[in-house]
Amino acid sequence: MHVADVARALDLLGVFAFAVNGAFTAVAKTRVDIVGILALGVITALGGGIIRDLCIGAVPPAAFTDPYYLTLAAGGALIAFFVSGVPRLLHHSILVLDAVGLSVFAVSGAQKALAFGLDPAPAILLGAVTAVGGGTIRDVIIREIPSVMTSGLYAIPALVGAAITVAAAQIAIPGVSGAVAGAAVCFLIRMLGLRFKIDAPTSLRRRRERRD
Amino acid sequence: MHVADVARALDLLGVFAFAVNGAFTAVAKTRVDIVGILALGVITALGGGIIRDLCIGAVPPAAFTDPYYLTLAAGGALIAFFVSGVPRLLHHSILVLDAVGLSVFAVSGAQKALAFGLDPAPAILLGAVTAVGGGTIRDVIIREIPSVMTSGLYAIPALVGAAITVAAAQIAIPGVSGAVAGAAVCFLIRMLGLRFKIDAPTSLRRRRERRD
Amino acid sequence: MHVADVARALDLLGVFAFAVNGAFTAVAKTRVDIVGILALGVITALGGGIIRDLCIGAVPPAAFTDPYYLTLAAGGALIAFFVSGVPRLLHHSILVLDAVGLSVFAVSGAQKALAFGLDPAPAILLGAVTAVGGGTIRDVIIREIPSVMTSGLYAIPALVGAAITVAAAQIAIPGVSGAVAGAAVCFLIRMLGLRFKIDAPTSLRRRRERRD
Repeated sequence: MHVADVARALDLLGVFAFAVNGAFTAVAKTRVDIVGILALGVITALGGGIIRDLCIGAVPPAAFTDPYYLTLAAGGALIAFFVSGVPRLLHHSILVLDAVGLSVFAVSGAQKALAFGLDPAPAILLGAVTAVGGGTIRDVIIREIPSVMTSGLYAIPALVGAAITVAAAQIAIPGVSGAVAGAAVCFLIRMLGLRFKIDAPTSLRRRRERRD
Repeated sequence: MHVADVARALDLLGVFAFAVNGAFTAVAKTRVDIVGILALGVITALGGGIIRDLCIGAVPPAAFTDPYYLTLAAGGALIAFFVSGVPRLLHHSILVLDAVGLSVFAVSGAQKALAFGLDPAPAILLGAVTAVGGGTIRDVIIREIPSVMTSGLYAIPALVGAAITVAAAQIAIPGVSGAVAGAAVCFLIRMLGLRFKIDAPTSLRRRRERRD
Repeated sequence: MHVADVARALDLLGVFAFAVNGAFTAVAKTRVDIVGILALGVITALGGGIIRDLCIGAVPPAAFTDPYYLTLAAGGALIAFFVSGVPRLLHHSILVLDAVGLSVFAVSGAQKALAFGLDPAPAILLGAVTAVGGGTIRDVIIREIPSVMTSGLYAIPALVGAAITVAAAQIAIPGVSGAVAGAAVCFLIRMLGLRFKIDAPTSLRRRRERRD
């Protein structure tokens, strides 16, 4: 199996995991109907990539030209719709798959931004936006403060993974090694954050409130 | 009167109806001032088409190049601002006009996506996005779960209408017949849904809650 | 010092002020962590310009190609993160800097839209969108009705400033004079509005409620 095939398989796995996760979130936190569940699953899976593609000028976005994306996103959301009575059973595997999606999207997003001529810093940022953008839009639609902004380590591993990928590309390490290293580190930080419930630091004011 | 003129007249009628509807919603559900009412009316009317145009690469979006769009959208919102003391008078006609807008936007959105080279499935999706996108952004801004995701038949008739249009184009039926059929079916489903208060199905979990 | 340098300095000052303001708002109104504070600061500073650039086809947006933008936006947000215990000290100067940002963004946004071939009316609209777009996205993310829609004079001075700039360009007054006049009038209206607590008019229905 070729390396590009592995990357593609992981990318599609990420789309599927994000869609399932987005649809489960919609079922758990809102009273939306099947249209809402499908829409929120698809938006979670494809929203980050669409924002990235619009910003780098890759129009129409891959979400509209690669039929696998839309199919897997809608399929994942539909599965979540039908099994939504038993989400706890799958809770752990979803979190792992979601971390896979986060890692793969951060890396592939940064690589695509570089390929379209963006500088390192915006490429890293757009890698992270690819990874966290869909979930952010979902949370805004269902009226939650985006979870990426409030708790856990989610954007930070995405930024680190994207930065490793971009740094490797800058010093002419072959794309594959950099991408694998970036995705692996992102995945590791994310899983450690989940396991030990690590949060990103909050503001001075917030810390004072907690002490009082 | 030429067929294209009829399509254009309906399209502009849709923009106007969506703007009035969006502005009334803003007045009814929020405490926004005239800036907010105008902005929410214009966003409701033009938001879906802008998203579609950005995604298919039709830049600048038609909303910024066709002066009738912005004029009618702002005009509709302004009228709603001034008559907002008596919205009930117009309630029924607005719902009908809104259904006209939904039908016309779904069909014309799908056709434009096809014309820009998109595949059938994303063209259907973007037709529906054209039809429901503006109202979705409005609802997110005024902190409501988008009504398209919670109740009634709104996205489904748009998807059906767009699908009929795209299917007709695929089997080389002249664009006009397909568009008329798609818009008519969309309008019919929407009006039947309103008349008989039909909702889209909800998740298993939600149905269980209701039974208890 | 050349005029273009002054314009650029003011533009960067606006980015910085918007980022500080956005990050302070995030600290004051939400429980977001450092990721959220940085993201909301950057979005406030750069969001309006990104929307404008996507709509006029200036892709990638300047926010991703001009390294000063992202650096100043992230720097401003970071400063707000560290001094967030003493925001009152700086409250007044932030409001003034924010008004500078509003004025500069409205004028430069309208000029860029004209330069990309848009008609006067959409250029004025996109000037205002540049000025108020970032704050609007921030407010939507933190679940506030956008403040630009509810109180004070914020969008109206931006529209007036953009209109003066566009009108001057139409009658062939050199770009600099029109821009200076537009920005000055926008700044003046905004500061007068703040000083005398002037609000934009609300709907008839709202006024009736208040009387009762």
